[in-house]
Amino acid sequence: MSEKASDEARSDDTSRLETFADGVMAIAITLLILEVRVPHVEGRGLGAALAHQWPSYAGFVVSFLTIGIIWVNHHHMFKLISRSTHAFLMLNVVFLMTICVLPWPTALVADYVRDPDGRTVATAVYGGVMTSIAVMFNVVWRYAGTNHRLLVPGIADEALAKMNRSYLAGPVVYGSSTLIAFAQPYVSLAIFAGLAVYWLLPGTGPRAEVLTRRS
Amino acid sequence: MSEKASDEARSDDTSRLETFADGVMAIAITLLILEVRVPHVEGRGLGAALAHQWPSYAGFVVSFLTIGIIWVNHHHMFKLISRSTHAFLMLNVVFLMTICVLPWPTALVADYVRDPDGRTVATAVYGGVMTSIAVMFNVVWRYAGTNHRLLVPGIADEALAKMNRSYLAGPVVYGSSTLIAFAQPYVSLAIFAGLAVYWLLPGTGPRAEVLTRRS
Amino acid sequence: MSEKASDEARSDDTSRLETFADGVMAIAITLLILEVRVPHVEGRGLGAALAHQWPSYAGFVVSFLTIGIIWVNHHHMFKLISRSTHAFLMLNVVFLMTICVLPWPTALVADYVRDPDGRTVATAVYGGVMTSIAVMFNVVWRYAGTNHRLLVPGIADEALAKMNRSYLAGPVVYGSSTLIAFAQPYVSLAIFAGLAVYWLLPGTGPRAEVLTRRS
Amino acid sequence: MSEKASDEARSDDTSRLETFADGVMAIAITLLILEVRVPHVEGRGLGAALAHQWPSYAGFVVSFLTIGIIWVNHHHMFKLISRSTHAFLMLNVVFLMTICVLPWPTALVADYVRDPDGRTVATAVYGGVMTSIAVMFNVVWRYAGTNHRLLVPGIADEALAKMNRSYLAGPVVYGSSTLIAFAQPYVSLAIFAGLAVYWLLPGTGPRAEVLTRRS
Repeated sequence: MSEKASDEARSDDTSRLETFADGVMAIAITLLILEVRVPHVEGRGLGAALAHQWPSYAGFVVSFLTIGIIWVNHHHMFKLISRSTHAFLMLNVVFLMTICVLPWPTALVADYVRDPDGRTVATAVYGGVMTSIAVMFNVVWRYAGTNHRLLVPGIADEALAKMNRSYLAGPVVYGSSTLIAFAQPYVSLAIFAGLAVYWLLPGTGPRAEVLTRRS
Repeated sequence: MSEKASDEARSDDTSRLETFADGVMAIAITLLILEVRVPHVEGRGLGAALAHQWPSYAGFVVSFLTIGIIWVNHHHMFKLISRSTHAFLMLNVVFLMTICVLPWPTALVADYVRDPDGRTVATAVYGGVMTSIAVMFNVVWRYAGTNHRLLVPGIADEALAKMNRSYLAGPVVYGSSTLIAFAQPYVSLAIFAGLAVYWLLPGTGPRAEVLTRRS
Repeated sequence: MSEKASDEARSDDTSRLETFADGVMAIAITLLILEVRVPHVEGRGLGAALAHQWPSYAGFVVSFLTIGIIWVNHHHMFKLISRSTHAFLMLNVVFLMTICVLPWPTALVADYVRDPDGRTVATAVYGGVMTSIAVMFNVVWRYAGTNHRLLVPGIADEALAKMNRSYLAGPVVYGSSTLIAFAQPYVSLAIFAGLAVYWLLPGTGPRAEVLTRRS
Repeated sequence: MSEKASDEARSDDTSRLETFADGVMAIAITLLILEVRVPHVEGRGLGAALAHQWPSYAGFVVSFLTIGIIWVNHHHMFKLISRSTHAFLMLNVVFLMTICVLPWPTALVADYVRDPDGRTVATAVYGGVMTSIAVMFNVVWRYAGTNHRLLVPGIADEALAKMNRSYLAGPVVYGSSTLIAFAQPYVSLAIFAGLAVYWLLPGTGPRAEVLTRRS
């Protein structure tokens, strides 16, 4: 088989990987709603019972937006990646695994956020999962970016260094916020919620810079 | 990187966004069946128990058709959109979030439709989710359409204005029907069901006009 | 917009419809496993408890193979279809709805197959859903095939008539088997299982003929 | 229809099959998290209750990595396959069925691994499902590879024989490990976990060789 055919096979890799990753993220994001329960009460108390469940809705929204933002970032990252290797596929599998876990600590926090004893542990677990997602995102990116291993041609070294720095913000911010959970779980949860809303805003995060740089 | 490569990257955006949106809508529509329960009764009473569950089936059908119609409309809308931005991706994430919520109020209505006290609240929540889907659909469309920001070339301004008006029907109709729920929940539910069936019919809604205009 | 661009948009229709249909069928087929329970018994009785659950496994296999066969047939059908209309999309949405229902009667039959009173009703419901899938498959096909409305060019009228006849076997066989359920539910279930295995075999069903005819 | 059009249709087969298979694997892998429960205890005991659930997490990780590795291998296999037949589609449906089963024995092992009586049966069922996946993977490959039936042109016979041998390792290793479960369930589980980690490492398994050979 010619060198060219082999190159085509490698770029196919990226496309099938993107499809698989999109599929997994689409399912993980949709499964979040299964953790929001229908209360079983007398009809008269339904309004109050629904209001009482607000941590479920807040958890749903924060986790949904977070996975949505990860999807958008993954999306931007893969515009810069044109090849794949066995190790890169496997790193992506581990990255996707950390995302798939998210519905579980979301339900955990919703169930224990009002319990003064359980709140700390639940928040720390939620933060730990968030941090591991951010770490794996960086591992995937660093593997692809180091020495331009899997990148499209034409990306300047300084642009790369800038992206490395900005992606690093994720593990640092989520990791710190997880540590805060042990002292002030509500503050920690507020940071997670704030980050989801902040990154939703236009012009935030690493991708804007990269796109500016490219066009 | 050349201007052309950058343009290609942007049109890739749309295609990966469509795939992700299709994935999320396909999952949300399929999860609806998980809310239809298998009754646990003596075999002799199975027929009656199944018949008693009719609100579950009705809710399943109405919500399924509604998501199906949204998918078809999203599909038509994206034929007119050829570019993407970070803000546009994020607006689509929020739009998809409103759709993903739908299995939950569907189960809520099915459980409380026969309860005179809970019926009003459950219907209002269902209507609220439906309205928020319709609002976000318009937000996504307006962001793309304003000043032809992300549109394919060659769409006349008057065609655009016509589409703006016809898409606006969604929030108005669903919003009004949600208000009606506070006085007459059955009427409100009948309107939601009627809209799902009406838009199923050939030649209804905004898309027919648009396609006529294009060919 | 030129005639050509409009044609491309229409063939895009088919491809996004196929992706959406594949997604829905992939999810419906995978959700079937959620109906197979983990028994909660003393460890000593686990083997017996697992064996006792055989109707769940049988139901899973028969429904999985049935959806798999529908996917393959849908796949073959769409090789002959190159255009789409609003009505065609909507008919496909209704067709997909009948498939999405299947996990529910599968669980119903598994729960009631050993109950002499519930068995008949459960089997009739299962058969009714199977029949409605087969009917909608034919509706989708007839809409596309009548007067070659949405077909690729070059299909002979006699080939079309032959396909019409062979696809019609589905509703007839599933409908009859559903009627048999009222007298002999076990016979009816055996027919559903037998059909799933039969259509799995190479050289059965309508598609073989069509492909022979085309090459 | 010309011979060329027919060939294109066949290669379309492979692409839609890959999409469907990716969808099913993406869903099966994501559903695994639904088997990890949120414990319901007093908040003070939450940490201990979460720690007590470790078999759930271990099962989630091992099954997730295993499906991930199967996806990567399926991916590599399909780079060598360029055509499809009805029988090949059906064999893939059966292969996907064995993968979809996996969330169920994963939950079974997590629930019974600490029960001295149930542990053996649960592990044997888990191993049986793993073995059937490996067997079906080989059946799919052998069907495609025998006499180069569905392969891309240019693969040497000796490369094919080497792949046959290396893919055969799966059923042998998983089958043996399942037999070990009857005597030493913990050893058996350790082998399943070890294989998932081992195949995650770069340079392991059949695909590395094949890719070397191709470029």
